[in-house]
Amino acid sequence: MALTAPTALLLSIGSELLLGETVDINAAWLGRELAALGVDLRGVRQIPDDRGVIAGAFAAGLAEHDLVLATGGLGPTHDDLTRGGLADALGEELFEDEGLAGALRDRFGGDAWMPASNLRQAQLIASAKPLDNPIGSAPGWWVEREGRFVALMPGVPAEMQLMWIAQVAPRLQGKLGLRPLAMRTVKTFGLGESAVAERLGDLLEAPGESIDAGIYARDDGVHLRFSTRLDASRLEDPVRRAISALGDDVYGTDAETLPRLALAALQRGGASTLASLESGTDGALLAILAAHQAAEGEARYRGGALLVDGERPQAPAAADAVLTVRLAAQGALGRSRVAVDLAAPGMGFDTRVARIHGSGQQRPRRAAFAALDLVRRAGITTEGGA
Amino acid sequence: MALTAPTALLLSIGSELLLGETVDINAAWLGRELAALGVDLRGVRQIPDDRGVIAGAFAAGLAEHDLVLATGGLGPTHDDLTRGGLADALGEELFEDEGLAGALRDRFGGDAWMPASNLRQAQLIASAKPLDNPIGSAPGWWVEREGRFVALMPGVPAEMQLMWIAQVAPRLQGKLGLRPLAMRTVKTFGLGESAVAERLGDLLEAPGESIDAGIYARDDGVHLRFSTRLDASRLEDPVRRAISALGDDVYGTDAETLPRLALAALQRGGASTLASLESGTDGALLAILAAHQAAEGEARYRGGALLVDGERPQAPAAADAVLTVRLAAQGALGRSRVAVDLAAPGMGFDTRVARIHGSGQQRPRRAAFAALDLVRRAGITTEGGA
Repeated sequence: MALTAPTALLLSIGSELLLGETVDINAAWLGRELAALGVDLRGVRQIPDDRGVIAGAFAAGLAEHDLVLATGGLGPTHDDLTRGGLADALGEELFEDEGLAGALRDRFGGDAWMPASNLRQAQLIASAKPLDNPIGSAPGWWVEREGRFVALMPGVPAEMQLMWIAQVAPRLQGKLGLRPLAMRTVKTFGLGESAVAERLGDLLEAPGESIDAGIYARDDGVHLRFSTRLDASRLEDPVRRAISALGDDVYGTDAETLPRLALAALQRGGASTLASLESGTDGALLAILAAHQAAEGEARYRGGALLVDGERPQAPAAADAVLTVRLAAQGALGRSRVAVDLAAPGMGFDTRVARIHGSGQQRPRRAAFAALDLVRRAGITTEGGA
Repeated sequence: MALTAPTALLLSIGSELLLGETVDINAAWLGRELAALGVDLRGVRQIPDDRGVIAGAFAAGLAEHDLVLATGGLGPTHDDLTRGGLADALGEELFEDEGLAGALRDRFGGDAWMPASNLRQAQLIASAKPLDNPIGSAPGWWVEREGRFVALMPGVPAEMQLMWIAQVAPRLQGKLGLRPLAMRTVKTFGLGESAVAERLGDLLEAPGESIDAGIYARDDGVHLRFSTRLDASRLEDPVRRAISALGDDVYGTDAETLPRLALAALQRGGASTLASLESGTDGALLAILAAHQAAEGEARYRGGALLVDGERPQAPAAADAVLTVRLAAQGALGRSRVAVDLAAPGMGFDTRVARIHGSGQQRPRRAAFAALDLVRRAGITTEGGA
C-alpha cells in the first residue's frame, strides 16, 4: 500500500560494543534521523569484529530490507572488518583504490608520516563509491545492488553524523520515495508513567486512525509521542486531548524544554540573567543550563558552581536570579528529596521540596529538571495571581 | 572444547530505541557484566514493541544460544509486550499471578491507589519465576526450559542493574559452568589510535596464544585491551610490552583513572584539596571530578565553577590547588585547543595548551581529561627533577 515506508536494518559493528566498552549512541541518533526521513528502522544489531558474522548480517539484512546501514569497523587496524564482511556478502573482491590511497597520504603529509596500516582504509569493491570523511581518516562506502542500498559509516559519532548529513541522507532522499513520519510530543513533569497513562483514559490505546502512540519516562519527565505517516494535522486532536487531561503537569510540546521555560518565566518576572548553585548533583544543573545556552545561542545563563560541602554558597557570577538545588542522599525505593531555592525578583521562594525517583545518572539530572520545573510553575503562579 | 563459553543474545525491546528517543545504555552495562562472568555475548538486537517480532526474536535466540536476556517492555502500558512475546515463543499462556497482584496493590497502598493497568505487571507463564524489583513496579522473569535460560528485566537502568546483581547473575553462576574472561587494559593519553597501533608493532595482531587484543579511542584516551579465557598471568607479557613501547603516554592500567592520578600527583606535591574553574566545557571537568569523588568516597575535591563569560575567575571553595581549563571554539578537522592553568604548591604552571580531536559531547570531556593529564605529567616532571 502507499503508506509502506522503506525498511532498514542498522548494524553496529565492534566487539567493544558487546564487551560493553563503548555505548552505541549512534543507533539512537540514526534512529531519529531515519524516522524523520520516513524510513522504518526495523532493528538494530550489535555484532562483533568477526568477518563471517558481519558477512552473514549484511546478507540477512539485504534479503529483508531496502537499506542496510552500518557503523564502525572502518578503521586502520586488524580488527576493522566491515569492508571485508560486506565484500563477502556481495561476492566481490577488495582492492586498493589509488585515489583513496593518495588522499590518505596527503592527509598524513606524505608516505613517511602515514602508518602503513592506514592503507586498509583505501580499500573498495567494484559496486562501492567512497564517501568523503572530512574530519577523520576512514572514508565511508555507498553501495547500490539490485535496487537495495548499503551505507558504511565510521563509528566515531561526529564523523558518522557529518557523513550522514552531507552524503548519505541526501542520497537516500533521492533514491527512495520517502514519506516522512509526522510526530508530536507532549511533555509532562511531576507524574509517574502509570499515573500519566491512567489520566489519559484510552487515548494511548486508541489515539485515532493510522496514529501510533507511545509513552516514555525520561529525565525531563514523562513524554507522550503521537505519530502518523498521513497528514500531520491528524495529530492535533490527540495532542489537545492529552493537554486537556493533564493540565499544568504538561509543560510543553515538541521542542519545548524545561530550561527554556524556566528562563522565560524569570525573564517575565524581570530577571534577564541566571546563575546556579548546586550540591549532590555532580553539576547536572549547570551542565543542563550550559548545554541549553549553547544550543540556543543565548547569553542569559552566567555560570554555576558545584559545592561539595555546602560552605560559601556564593554564585560564581553576578546575575539577576540565583537558582540553588540540593540533592539529598538516596532514600528507600529509589526515591530522593530535592531542595530548591530561588532568589529572583517577584517570584523567588525558599526551600521548596520535590521528590524524584531513579538511581545512578538519572538522579542528578532529574533533580536539576525538578528545580527548573519549580521555577516554571512559580512563573505560572505569579502570573495567575497578578 | 573446554574453552567454549556459554553464549548469549541480548534483546533490547522498545520502539523508543529504534526511533532514537532513548539511548540503550543497558546493552553496554550488561556486556561488561557478561564478559566478567564468562558468558560470550554474541549479539544485541534492538527490536520494536511488536509482539510478533518479539516472539520471533526469542525463538531465534533460544535456537542458537544458551541464554537470552531481554530488557524493556515490562511496564504497565499497552505497548509493554515482552511478557506476551516470550509466552508466544514458548507456546505458553499468560495468567495473572495472585501473589504478584497482591504485592503490586501493597506497593501502591491499596487497590484504590493503583492504576488498573498495573495488573499487567502481575502476569506470569507456568515456566517463569518472578524476579523481585525493589525500586520499581515491574517484576522480572526467570525462565528455564530444556537447559536454556531466559531472564526478562526492566528497561530502567537502575532497576535492571539491581535485579541483575542480586538475582540474575547469581542464578547464572549457579546454573552454567562459567570460566571468566580475564582482561587487562592499558590506558594512554595524548596519542591518536593509529599512532598508538604503529608504536606497538605487531603486538595487536599477535598478542600471544589464546589472547585477544583490541584498541579503542575513548574520551579518556586510547585504550588497549588484552583478554583470555586461560590463565590471567598470560596477559602480563603483552601488557608489559605495550607499556614499554608507549612510555609516559601510558598513564595506567585497568581501573586506574586520570582524576585519581591527577589528585595523587597534587597530594604528593603537598596539595590535599582541589577546586576547579572552567569555561567552554559545559561543566565537564567538575562533573568528572565529582563523579570520581563519589565513586572513591573521598573529600579532596571541593567543588568547581563553570564560567560563561570568563569574568570573576574565582574558585567557588577554598582549596590548596585550583585547576583551570578553557576550551576554545572548535577548529578545522574537529580539532580544538585547550588552555590549562594549575595553581598548586611546587608544581603549578601557567597556560599549557593541549590539542584534542572530536566533536559534540566528546569535546568538553576530552578537554577535561587533557587538563587532568597535564596535571599527571606535571607530577612526573616534578618528581623526575627532584
